[in-house]
Amino acid sequence: MTNITLAHGNGGVENNELITNIFYSAFKNEILEKSEDAAVIENGNLAFSTDSFTVSPLFFNGADIGKLAVCGTCNDLAMMGAKPKYLTCSVIIEEGFEVEQLEKIVASMKEELAKNEAIVVSGDTKVVPKGSVDKIFINTTGVGEIQYKGISSNNITTDDMILVSRDIGAHGATIFAAREGMDMSTTLKSDCNSLYPQVKALIDSGVKITALRDATRGGLSAVLNEWAKQSNVCIEVEEDKIPVSDEVKGICEMLGFEASNLANEGTFVLAIAKDDAQKAIDVLKKFPEATNAAIIGKVTDQYEQKVVLNSAWGTKRFLETPTGELLPRIC
Amino acid sequence: MTNITLAHGNGGVENNELITNIFYSAFKNEILEKSEDAAVIENGNLAFSTDSFTVSPLFFNGADIGKLAVCGTCNDLAMMGAKPKYLTCSVIIEEGFEVEQLEKIVASMKEELAKNEAIVVSGDTKVVPKGSVDKIFINTTGVGEIQYKGISSNNITTDDMILVSRDIGAHGATIFAAREGMDMSTTLKSDCNSLYPQVKALIDSGVKITALRDATRGGLSAVLNEWAKQSNVCIEVEEDKIPVSDEVKGICEMLGFEASNLANEGTFVLAIAKDDAQKAIDVLKKFPEATNAAIIGKVTDQYEQKVVLNSAWGTKRFLETPTGELLPRIC
Repeated sequence: MTNITLAHGNGGVENNELITNIFYSAFKNEILEKSEDAAVIENGNLAFSTDSFTVSPLFFNGADIGKLAVCGTCNDLAMMGAKPKYLTCSVIIEEGFEVEQLEKIVASMKEELAKNEAIVVSGDTKVVPKGSVDKIFINTTGVGEIQYKGISSNNITTDDMILVSRDIGAHGATIFAAREGMDMSTTLKSDCNSLYPQVKALIDSGVKITALRDATRGGLSAVLNEWAKQSNVCIEVEEDKIPVSDEVKGICEMLGFEASNLANEGTFVLAIAKDDAQKAIDVLKKFPEATNAAIIGKVTDQYEQKVVLNSAWGTKRFLETPTGELLPRIC
Repeated sequence: MTNITLAHGNGGVENNELITNIFYSAFKNEILEKSEDAAVIENGNLAFSTDSFTVSPLFFNGADIGKLAVCGTCNDLAMMGAKPKYLTCSVIIEEGFEVEQLEKIVASMKEELAKNEAIVVSGDTKVVPKGSVDKIFINTTGVGEIQYKGISSNNITTDDMILVSRDIGAHGATIFAAREGMDMSTTLKSDCNSLYPQVKALIDSGVKITALRDATRGGLSAVLNEWAKQSNVCIEVEEDKIPVSDEVKGICEMLGFEASNLANEGTFVLAIAKDDAQKAIDVLKKFPEATNAAIIGKVTDQYEQKVVLNSAWGTKRFLETPTGELLPRIC
């Protein structure tokens, strides 16, 4: 008898194994096997994606579970070049939860929906007895209209450069700090944010987009490794080009984390045609939240399905998919 | 400070209040306000619906949480005349849950997806620490292709008859019996079942369908009251025409329940044009699970937005929307 462990939800190795062995093997179909951020349906016209949110604490610096629930699903749609359009909202609430808190959460959702010009068209509300759920879990599932076709994590080639839209790890570091009751006088806050406006600006600018992925659970390391495997390439990243804020660096040093493994909720990785990479950076930098956007690496065929991290001192190491128990209830 | 109570999830009065006051008032839009079983999007071509499943126990006579999760969402699509096509599957699993049980649940989902000729195209897997969730919760959200346009709970008139597809209350009675450890040598089992085949047969037969709704939480009473309000009509039902199995009657008598308040997971209520009502019954009766299909009432303008129950002895009473704490975690 095997049992599910927290590592099975880490966004890394064990999580991938669970998904592949249990879900993909049962639900086998071409769309699911593409492992994109959102499924492409209806002749390539619509994107469709789901996410459940279990974050603890519910309210944290920079966002709350409501904002997170809208951003998370809208961002998955945006990563397929889709404009978020329709969302469903399903909540499971613990008996005794305060109505005022629920109202705050729903108000955050409303605000973030407006930024995406999306609407909630269907919902479900369950209330369960005390102890059956911790406060509130929210599922959002979204349908978006694809504005730029062909974005795929399976099509990255040596003609692409690897970019990141801002400094990494802020969400993971914020949740960790909040949970540990660390001093909140710091400016550290979650990057939780809706990404469609940035994606739209990229599309409108005419740059050739190969792949986009928001670096949630498992962080930058997970995305780069997924891409290396899915596109059968080697991704080489320059460590000193990866933007990391001082606050996140501080938390990482204190606790022995790697910023590249920390979750983000408004930061995405881009594979952009070489000739357009700098143009994409210029487009992103117009957004106040993306002033740290940077080209961090290139795609090569040096190793099969590997991510190589080049340090400033000329050393090289593989950046691996995160493994083990990271932070549960991060999103 | 007000707190959420179990009654807020009962599918009845308090549940409606919560949905209206918190969610509808924030998410306000035309589609949501129609309060249909599924949202109609993309120029009336697609139906879109979500449901989270928290049922306890996970395995019960006639189904399990996996079958329920597929039936529940596919049925909501079917109730809008839509063929279930794409589903998302999002699971929240408690640390320590047995992989074998997860495999059984996923196998049930697979089997039921095949019956609907639907596929899971996107998923999410969260694992949370012990005590943060009770075993496993599943959200499914579906997109279906509308085959018969114009089905709506807002369009019922005195030209319609009210039908029910089979005997009512089996799911609610089964879960209750299972939870109370009552003797399982009875033939009582959940009605949990995929309804699209029955809906397709109705569409193919050419009957004029006004409204369909599966009688889940809150049971037949909730559906009829919702319809009376939404279509601004009076619905008059003949008590002795409502099919109830002996097993369900037994549980109701023993425990003081009304069968019409009990949840169903494979039983639907129909508003069908008078001239086609008998034909619809004939179509339904070809399905082994629907041999008890019956015309149970008519639509009048006797009272505003009320449901009248006529007993066999000539007495009349209003059938009200269920209120108070019904059975939590019924679905």
